[in-house]
Amino acid sequence: MDVTTLSLTTLDLTNEDGLLLLRLNRPDALNSFTVAMAEELTRVFTEVNDDDTVRAVIVTGTGRAFCAGMALDVAGNVFGLDESVQPDWADLADLTDPALARVRDTGGMVTLAIYACRKPVIAAINGAAVGIGATMTLAMDARLVSTKARFGLVFGKLGISPEACSTWFLPRLVGTAKALDLIYSAEILDAEATVAIGLAARAYEPEELLTAARELANRWTRGRSAVSVALMRQQIYRNSGQPHPAAASRSETMAMYATSIGDGKEGVAAFLAKRPAEFAARASQMPAWYADWIAEFDARWGANTPVE
Amino acid sequence: MDVTTLSLTTLDLTNEDGLLLLRLNRPDALNSFTVAMAEELTRVFTEVNDDDTVRAVIVTGTGRAFCAGMALDVAGNVFGLDESVQPDWADLADLTDPALARVRDTGGMVTLAIYACRKPVIAAINGAAVGIGATMTLAMDARLVSTKARFGLVFGKLGISPEACSTWFLPRLVGTAKALDLIYSAEILDAEATVAIGLAARAYEPEELLTAARELANRWTRGRSAVSVALMRQQIYRNSGQPHPAAASRSETMAMYATSIGDGKEGVAAFLAKRPAEFAARASQMPAWYADWIAEFDARWGANTPVE
Amino acid sequence: MDVTTLSLTTLDLTNEDGLLLLRLNRPDALNSFTVAMAEELTRVFTEVNDDDTVRAVIVTGTGRAFCAGMALDVAGNVFGLDESVQPDWADLADLTDPALARVRDTGGMVTLAIYACRKPVIAAINGAAVGIGATMTLAMDARLVSTKARFGLVFGKLGISPEACSTWFLPRLVGTAKALDLIYSAEILDAEATVAIGLAARAYEPEELLTAARELANRWTRGRSAVSVALMRQQIYRNSGQPHPAAASRSETMAMYATSIGDGKEGVAAFLAKRPAEFAARASQMPAWYADWIAEFDARWGANTPVE
Repeated sequence: MDVTTLSLTTLDLTNEDGLLLLRLNRPDALNSFTVAMAEELTRVFTEVNDDDTVRAVIVTGTGRAFCAGMALDVAGNVFGLDESVQPDWADLADLTDPALARVRDTGGMVTLAIYACRKPVIAAINGAAVGIGATMTLAMDARLVSTKARFGLVFGKLGISPEACSTWFLPRLVGTAKALDLIYSAEILDAEATVAIGLAARAYEPEELLTAARELANRWTRGRSAVSVALMRQQIYRNSGQPHPAAASRSETMAMYATSIGDGKEGVAAFLAKRPAEFAARASQMPAWYADWIAEFDARWGANTPVE
Repeated sequence: MDVTTLSLTTLDLTNEDGLLLLRLNRPDALNSFTVAMAEELTRVFTEVNDDDTVRAVIVTGTGRAFCAGMALDVAGNVFGLDESVQPDWADLADLTDPALARVRDTGGMVTLAIYACRKPVIAAINGAAVGIGATMTLAMDARLVSTKARFGLVFGKLGISPEACSTWFLPRLVGTAKALDLIYSAEILDAEATVAIGLAARAYEPEELLTAARELANRWTRGRSAVSVALMRQQIYRNSGQPHPAAASRSETMAMYATSIGDGKEGVAAFLAKRPAEFAARASQMPAWYADWIAEFDARWGANTPVE
Repeated sequence: MDVTTLSLTTLDLTNEDGLLLLRLNRPDALNSFTVAMAEELTRVFTEVNDDDTVRAVIVTGTGRAFCAGMALDVAGNVFGLDESVQPDWADLADLTDPALARVRDTGGMVTLAIYACRKPVIAAINGAAVGIGATMTLAMDARLVSTKARFGLVFGKLGISPEACSTWFLPRLVGTAKALDLIYSAEILDAEATVAIGLAARAYEPEELLTAARELANRWTRGRSAVSVALMRQQIYRNSGQPHPAAASRSETMAMYATSIGDGKEGVAAFLAKRPAEFAARASQMPAWYADWIAEFDARWGANTPVE
């Protein structure tokens, strides 16, 4: 799988020596979000798991914006929802039910694909990130901002409500009190403010942003085992949400066992010999238990009602 | 429903142009907490959901204290508990069982009503907030302190244990390590210390405290859709506690759908026309799915054992 | 039970007037972690619950290291795992299954014993804390570091994966974003960096480290009810992980009831008389409901699948 061969109309992909630079690519429309972009982002964050040439993903925008949110000047329901469906709560039991296709929050499709991704994902926010342009970055592992970045969780001003699983991701990044203040206030933050509140790691000059993102991505993944990185990412996100640490001990036991008979052997040998490690395991071929763990986790915790 | 018409003996309510100023009103007793106050607070935070003239609630104390905790100089069990009941763990399966009425933590009744409230709640801590006077504010959306505020999680010094769901709210506000230190240390913090540890947003001169609280409440709710605000509040509290972001995507899908065919139409139109929005939806009449979501959430996660 | 009478080969225990000083005691090997050390730590953190002479535990290292991690220069599987077992995910359903004895992450055994401990636990990190030497401290209630401390979550560099329930504890201490950065980066932090990132409370001169740890332990436990302290500790860890605050209200109701008819009576009387309290309850004899609460909690949340 070479993810850069995907046929895409709203995104531009470049594999830069193992770092996938993903550009939101509708510069004439400030990279505003569309249903097509949602589907393409979901596809890329899913397919990239099977492209072993990619170590990490960097998301940025073409031109002066990162992503200006949903295009609000379209005809009909501006969020692309089918107003005739009128779902009730019971209909939501299975989010993947095709009957929900025209109803479902498309931002949530994207962030759930990022959640399930086996590669680190870095947002390089080069300009305005508003609405879904802001919330999609909350599911990424770091947010670097240029001094020209703007970050707006503006839902309240439009009479709508936050999406893209942001009511799950945001409080985990900044705590409940700051999350409420950001969401209620609905103000557009400048780069400094995103750093001050803990949303972004650091602000950079515009011309330094991508360099900084590449350096971070390399620091995280160069010379690493792709399976080790995937297990670390999935365990931090999933186990931190479990009510009990014993549940974490299960996946950690399996992950430690799998790597101790896999890339860990090379890692320890290289460490003892004081030479760089050469890891062989591939994230496209996770150990067998991995799929069982993820499937059980999604079924138990991702459903509306407990699985019997 | 006009919440200010409730007949109350321990609280004083004023509706100031949409902001409900709720004063703990036993100034001769430093507004110390009683079973009557617990019942009245629970009632107000429940009934206010049906008073569409209220956009947000500000809680403060009459006189020099905020709330000095339980009155400890009463006869019998100072916490108002019936010592003859002797419940065991199985008896707690249903917290609303009338048999538990004289046993149940009354602070928890109050904070669970605040948790379920559809309006933002701001604590304006004007003086001593000790014991339940401190823990009740942890369930509120922001804590503003006057320079005369004192904040004491003093349970350890009395040989008792924290209540009012504070073992749930506190770590979400300040993290596990600071929560343990605060609870173990049982010290009384001054205003500066509450800000330094992240419990309070900012300290104000006493005469500026209510003005600041009103400004914050207006910044959060003026010109907003009451249904949008209610959905934002409930989703931040409930979805951030879910183990999996997919669960958040369900309520977000319903919330986005509901607002996109409701106040969101006016919000987008006003935004495009660069005019102020005039929202019509009322928090007393939430969309139909809302009650189903809340009921399922409470049954699944609020019970001791999984609901079959 | 006098925990200092346990026969131990890798640990040194001293009861200093109620503070148990636990030294990781393999100084010739930089206190590196072994299966024997895992079993002894698990035993001490379990048995200490029944030693009423101990109020708190301070963990430090003998000599210049805290704990340099697993000894990597042993023959066979360096993590002590039996490579012939080849467990699959279903085998992990019961972590205590004896068939998993040679497969299970030993660090997780230790941190789950710390999680269940009824006494505050303080890490006094005197030197290198690497791998399991770092992760075991994440389950402790505070980390004090000497200026000579080094803290390394180095799993990524070895091609392995974090253990000891660290994917559960770490994000609760520093948030998701910092947790990911620490784990991906796999760098060794100096004392200052551990404080800056919020992992350690403060850095001390080496000769002041144990004094500071003793002062903190005394501040937390001297003149306190041992049952009150145990209830506070267990409720902060367990209730903060629950999805719903109502669940916290259950244990808080029982804890408040139990202490109000127990040590709380003395606590209130002493407070009103302005004299020091003399508490009598013992953590070796928790109230009857306590075991039921813990058992239900572990069964419901610690298992892979919901308990029917």
